[in-house]
Amino acid sequence: MRQLGSCAMLMLCGLMACTPESEMQIDESAAVRQIIEAHNSKLVHWYAAGQIDSVVTVFASDARQMGPNMAPLVGREAIRDSWTQATSWGTWTFELNTESVSASGPLAVEHGTYTLSFEPGATAPPGMAATADTGNYIVQWRREDGEWLIVNDIATSQIPVATLCERHQ
Amino acid sequence: MRQLGSCAMLMLCGLMACTPESEMQIDESAAVRQIIEAHNSKLVHWYAAGQIDSVVTVFASDARQMGPNMAPLVGREAIRDSWTQATSWGTWTFELNTESVSASGPLAVEHGTYTLSFEPGATAPPGMAATADTGNYIVQWRREDGEWLIVNDIATSQIPVATLCERHQ
Repeated sequence: MRQLGSCAMLMLCGLMACTPESEMQIDESAAVRQIIEAHNSKLVHWYAAGQIDSVVTVFASDARQMGPNMAPLVGREAIRDSWTQATSWGTWTFELNTESVSASGPLAVEHGTYTLSFEPGATAPPGMAATADTGNYIVQWRREDGEWLIVNDIATSQIPVATLCERHQ
Repeated sequence: MRQLGSCAMLMLCGLMACTPESEMQIDESAAVRQIIEAHNSKLVHWYAAGQIDSVVTVFASDARQMGPNMAPLVGREAIRDSWTQATSWGTWTFELNTESVSASGPLAVEHGTYTLSFEPGATAPPGMAATADTGNYIVQWRREDGEWLIVNDIATSQIPVATLCERHQ
């Protein structure tokens, strides 16, 4: 059915005056950006509230999350386990600022900047300190059955190593 | 002309039996992966040889490079300036291992793992030490006038902060 719909749209485009590819992509990207920003608002809330079962509904089953200075989390279940533990120790507050979205068909790429702070709670392991980070991220989104899901989520810190290590002492 | 060709192809697809979207994307991604891997082979050679004027031919004019623990490099000229200086100090040896490529129209996303080592040369600033890093990267590629160029290049180290700071002392 989906295939038939796709074919019908292609025929329609073939028979009518076509919009140039670049203009179509600007419209497409703007529409997808709205969806992504709505997802991000929810994600930020869910991370802060420790609602990790909700967080992972936005991740594809084969998603990969690559945070700074740690082994990548591969698969939705690994992401769920890691964040369930992390949020049991305290509060993780993200700010996600989407800078650009490029979409084409079922593929979209978001670039943005982030800040992240961690405030340890009563159940944090002894000596676990408050932390803060800031940097850039790229998220690869994929449309699956009409839903946009995260496939790759990578963040890199822009805090210089010297500063990081002063804080780490 | 390009628009006309695109319309003709769409009509042809509309009139003939269509290949399902997912299968088309697997073929498309495999073809783009070959191009990306060829680019990467050249890039690794050019970085090691300090041929930065060649490196930047693979970057779009508005490209952004986001390396670990540094401010992002924004624009081809910033990338050129930063790497021209860095390669004047010694030899940067990358290994890039492409793990996956997803392509749709003029947009492609590559995920891979990297290793990077730096060996200071005679012109390195006093005290600049050899370094090594390993981690994951995502590159967003865009097809411009038939050429695939890098738009966003982000890498995140998977070396734990404690290890990083031991080396940094």
